[in-house]
Amino acid sequence: MTDPAAQLETFPNPHPGRDYVIEHVVGEFTSVCPRTGQPDFGRIAITYVADQRCVELKSLKLYLQRFRQRGIFYEDVTNVILDDLVAAASPRWMRVRSRWRARGGIRSVITAEHGERSRARGLKNMSD
Amino acid sequence: MTDPAAQLETFPNPHPGRDYVIEHVVGEFTSVCPRTGQPDFGRIAITYVADQRCVELKSLKLYLQRFRQRGIFYEDVTNVILDDLVAAASPRWMRVRSRWRARGGIRSVITAEHGERSRARGLKNMSD
Amino acid sequence: MTDPAAQLETFPNPHPGRDYVIEHVVGEFTSVCPRTGQPDFGRIAITYVADQRCVELKSLKLYLQRFRQRGIFYEDVTNVILDDLVAAASPRWMRVRSRWRARGGIRSVITAEHGERSRARGLKNMSD
Amino acid sequence: MTDPAAQLETFPNPHPGRDYVIEHVVGEFTSVCPRTGQPDFGRIAITYVADQRCVELKSLKLYLQRFRQRGIFYEDVTNVILDDLVAAASPRWMRVRSRWRARGGIRSVITAEHGERSRARGLKNMSD
Amino acid sequence: MTDPAAQLETFPNPHPGRDYVIEHVVGEFTSVCPRTGQPDFGRIAITYVADQRCVELKSLKLYLQRFRQRGIFYEDVTNVILDDLVAAASPRWMRVRSRWRARGGIRSVITAEHGERSRARGLKNMSD
Amino acid sequence: MTDPAAQLETFPNPHPGRDYVIEHVVGEFTSVCPRTGQPDFGRIAITYVADQRCVELKSLKLYLQRFRQRGIFYEDVTNVILDDLVAAASPRWMRVRSRWRARGGIRSVITAEHGERSRARGLKNMSD
Amino acid sequence: MTDPAAQLETFPNPHPGRDYVIEHVVGEFTSVCPRTGQPDFGRIAITYVADQRCVELKSLKLYLQRFRQRGIFYEDVTNVILDDLVAAASPRWMRVRSRWRARGGIRSVITAEHGERSRARGLKNMSD
Amino acid sequence: MTDPAAQLETFPNPHPGRDYVIEHVVGEFTSVCPRTGQPDFGRIAITYVADQRCVELKSLKLYLQRFRQRGIFYEDVTNVILDDLVAAASPRWMRVRSRWRARGGIRSVITAEHGERSRARGLKNMSD
Amino acid sequence: MTDPAAQLETFPNPHPGRDYVIEHVVGEFTSVCPRTGQPDFGRIAITYVADQRCVELKSLKLYLQRFRQRGIFYEDVTNVILDDLVAAASPRWMRVRSRWRARGGIRSVITAEHGERSRARGLKNMSD
Amino acid sequence: MTDPAAQLETFPNPHPGRDYVIEHVVGEFTSVCPRTGQPDFGRIAITYVADQRCVELKSLKLYLQRFRQRGIFYEDVTNVILDDLVAAASPRWMRVRSRWRARGGIRSVITAEHGERSRARGLKNMSD
Repeated sequence: MTDPAAQLETFPNPHPGRDYVIEHVVGEFTSVCPRTGQPDFGRIAITYVADQRCVELKSLKLYLQRFRQRGIFYEDVTNVILDDLVAAASPRWMRVRSRWRARGGIRSVITAEHGERSRARGLKNMSD
Repeated sequence: MTDPAAQLETFPNPHPGRDYVIEHVVGEFTSVCPRTGQPDFGRIAITYVADQRCVELKSLKLYLQRFRQRGIFYEDVTNVILDDLVAAASPRWMRVRSRWRARGGIRSVITAEHGERSRARGLKNMSD
Repeated sequence: MTDPAAQLETFPNPHPGRDYVIEHVVGEFTSVCPRTGQPDFGRIAITYVADQRCVELKSLKLYLQRFRQRGIFYEDVTNVILDDLVAAASPRWMRVRSRWRARGGIRSVITAEHGERSRARGLKNMSD
Repeated sequence: MTDPAAQLETFPNPHPGRDYVIEHVVGEFTSVCPRTGQPDFGRIAITYVADQRCVELKSLKLYLQRFRQRGIFYEDVTNVILDDLVAAASPRWMRVRSRWRARGGIRSVITAEHGERSRARGLKNMSD
Repeated sequence: MTDPAAQLETFPNPHPGRDYVIEHVVGEFTSVCPRTGQPDFGRIAITYVADQRCVELKSLKLYLQRFRQRGIFYEDVTNVILDDLVAAASPRWMRVRSRWRARGGIRSVITAEHGERSRARGLKNMSD
Repeated sequence: MTDPAAQLETFPNPHPGRDYVIEHVVGEFTSVCPRTGQPDFGRIAITYVADQRCVELKSLKLYLQRFRQRGIFYEDVTNVILDDLVAAASPRWMRVRSRWRARGGIRSVITAEHGERSRARGLKNMSD
Repeated sequence: MTDPAAQLETFPNPHPGRDYVIEHVVGEFTSVCPRTGQPDFGRIAITYVADQRCVELKSLKLYLQRFRQRGIFYEDVTNVILDDLVAAASPRWMRVRSRWRARGGIRSVITAEHGERSRARGLKNMSD
Repeated sequence: MTDPAAQLETFPNPHPGRDYVIEHVVGEFTSVCPRTGQPDFGRIAITYVADQRCVELKSLKLYLQRFRQRGIFYEDVTNVILDDLVAAASPRWMRVRSRWRARGGIRSVITAEHGERSRARGLKNMSD
Repeated sequence: MTDPAAQLETFPNPHPGRDYVIEHVVGEFTSVCPRTGQPDFGRIAITYVADQRCVELKSLKLYLQRFRQRGIFYEDVTNVILDDLVAAASPRWMRVRSRWRARGGIRSVITAEHGERSRARGLKNMSD
Repeated sequence: MTDPAAQLETFPNPHPGRDYVIEHVVGEFTSVCPRTGQPDFGRIAITYVADQRCVELKSLKLYLQRFRQRGIFYEDVTNVILDDLVAAASPRWMRVRSRWRARGGIRSVITAEHGERSRARGLKNMSD
């Protein structure tokens, strides 16, 4: 598989002089469990304070679709998405949270952050 | 297009001696995506601590309606509304949050703030 | 109109040695918009830490009913109720929050506080 | 009436070496309004960090049932329950919150605390 | 009964260089009340920051099923699960929360933590 | 105990020429379990088509309060209330539904009707 | 008081050849209890199949505001509104439903209909 | 295993002259999947019109607990409970509905009835 | 304005031998009030049984967007959409329901049907 | 692609003498839009009255997973699943309902039935 991060596009932050919070919630994520080969279904929330670049939404959608046939654990995919987005957009702060439908009666949520949270003004009451 | 901020009216803060929090939630916002030309639909929440002037509601409604045919990105419109309202009312603190209906399976929330949040007593548990 | 605050009654705080939080939520408030003459409908939440006196509920209900025919703005009525209650009961801390049904597609929430919030132990998770 | 606190039983805290949070929510509380003689209905949430003793649930239920015919104000009963439970179990920290069904269109919530809240690790997101 | 902790398996944390939060919510927990012999039903939420090892989900499910016929109090089982998981995975921080269906009209929630919460970046807004 | 039905008052139906549906939902009902002596808590919904008399609300409240100390089963109390109200108001149609808080993990709902349901125009979508 | 029905205006049904269902829900209704003089608060839902005339919304709002200071029982006001609207618009079928906030712990719903319900195609799943 | 139906007790229907509907919802049912040996968790709703006997609640609870270690499919257990309850209480009509927590991402609901549904007056709007 | 119905495209019903129900809910509809010139916001639900043709979704979206600047009443737009869709796809049965955000405190729902509802097998429990 | 219906397994109906209703809701369905190549996400509810055979759950899950990479329209896939399940299990009655996440702001629900609905006793109030 080629590096999916290569697919991510960005555009210039229209208001780089202000720390403000952007959140994108992707309700339709699916990957494959590497142990059982069964599909996993989850929701991915990406919350960040842009520096010079913002994440372009269509390329984000296509980037996330590339996990559709990939075998990867919950903990790993959450950190991989965070690393790829940080590499592509160099945000001042970013958080990726994945929420997964139950497997064996257990539902899971994984949350990883990068950078200084103090930059994230207005973070409270975000939708996910 | 003429400057929409010219439309915003204010009235004197009836209790300027106290820092208190005002929130207006506009459930019916629509603008146009500059990339696809398709309409975007969102909810705009404006939360602030007035200084000498309060934002007049009818002019706020008309101001926001002027985005109906305007092509503008989520990140940009949120900051533009904040800048226009700050210019019109000079609040002690203000936050603008836009929540957008899903596009391509992705729903977004943008939050921008201006001024000292410590002035915003009673900010917790606001409705949006 | 005579001063509505004259109507408010209080009773001795049964446990003045402890800072504790009292909240009363009045779901049935109505006043009149001074600009349009149309009725406004809202919910008033009063949250406070009593000092020597507690607010008596029946007089609170009658006090709030006196706004039924009065023309007054959202921002003003919230601060007026706070001032009247502070004058009547001298609480250690008090917050008044009004939530209004939508007008012109905009719903508003106004929150004003008086006194030291640090006295308000157990304030978190209050119902309104 | 005999002292209802005499009814409360406790059992040894099975993990006294750790500060942890216990919450019991009693959805079926009723007492009598001392002014009108009408029944009041509420929900009592008891949240605490045990020291050497935990509150036994069956005796707690019976203790609270003893208010069924007793005339007592909202503010008073909340503090009385807190005092009785503190006397019986000597917790490191305790909070009692009562939520009452509406009377005259007003619903009330009373919250009283005892002891050092900093002991209450994991207090956030409790259910009541 | 053999030690149920012996059943817990772990796997290497794929991103040990970052403090991130993992949460597993098990909706189908049942044990037995040691006093009455009646079954208890609850939901167990396990939230942690892994160090070198992550908790393997299938072994976690089997571990929790071993309480199905065991008589144990709410307060005890919550701390026992925390101790067993800490022993098995040595997390940087961990919280176990159990929520129980009502008994005698009383529903209970027990929350116990281990380790430094400051490691738990992104803990806010977790699902349980 | 004297017959509680003697307490029920009625007033003339202001529109006897039309079959229309009246519903009163009493959220605060309590009686006593005759087997265990423990209090039961429920919600009583009374739905009817009046003939010449309507049920007066204050007397209905006082009538229902008379069950506060009375030992009576769920099935019985529902039918007794229906019989008493039918005797007092002779409605064209009436339904009484009681919903009970869980006992031993079992929550119950009892529904009894009297008269011709075809008279109950507009019955659909009632609130309880 | 002059007849409030005189205030109701109508406009021509734009599609009289089809039986279709129109519903207007007025969330902000208030009148006065004739027994206690206390304000009552309710929600009025008007559902109908127009014949030649539709009810004009602004005049409906003003018509309903005229009950603001009027003493009238729940059962009566529901039927009076139905009679006034039938007189003004001669619908093929009409239903008026009023839902009232609790008084003395009892919340009420009154529903009255006029005309042939079989004309009301598509009545199911209406919002109130 | 002895026949669990032997455990069911009944008591005389206090109002056998009227067809009325009784519903008991048991939120805490667990049995074992006969294929995998894994526990299943469900909610059982029993709705019926009694003839001469009503189902006694405590014996119902104990009867249902006897499935705790029993391997049985969803479809089977629903019909077995219906058959056992019909044998014990000979109702005029009865329905048993089981709702199961998801297995493999699939949640199931099974509904079986016995007798004449036309006897079940007031069946609409039952809680489960 | 050219006829917007000209924009609607259809595709062959893949299973014309079976009566089945198709529903499309468009959450983002906006038109203009012809009296005030203010924008209206609503949700349009289209439910139908196809005959030989199904409605193509992208053309449906574009068709509905053509009302964005058009002045038209609630009652009219609902019937116009129904007529246009019937003309374009000749369904066996069709229902159009519009739900509108509140204006002047009144929210409205309009429902119009075409054709034989008995063809609409499986209509119950549709999502809107 | 080989016929996915070949994958479906069944087992003998344990209670063929009774018409009863079985429902399986699969929350995690994904296929591909044949026009755009983009993934679609939906929920599939299968409700039926078995004759001699019941649908086996694990094979149902695997059968539905075979649509993961298949391009197929909403209307088609719903009918195809119904046809395949009818071929495999010959139910007395069956309904398949698919609910789809929004595309272009439009969310869709497709419902198809096979056989005599009158066999489906207890169909009301099913969960999907």
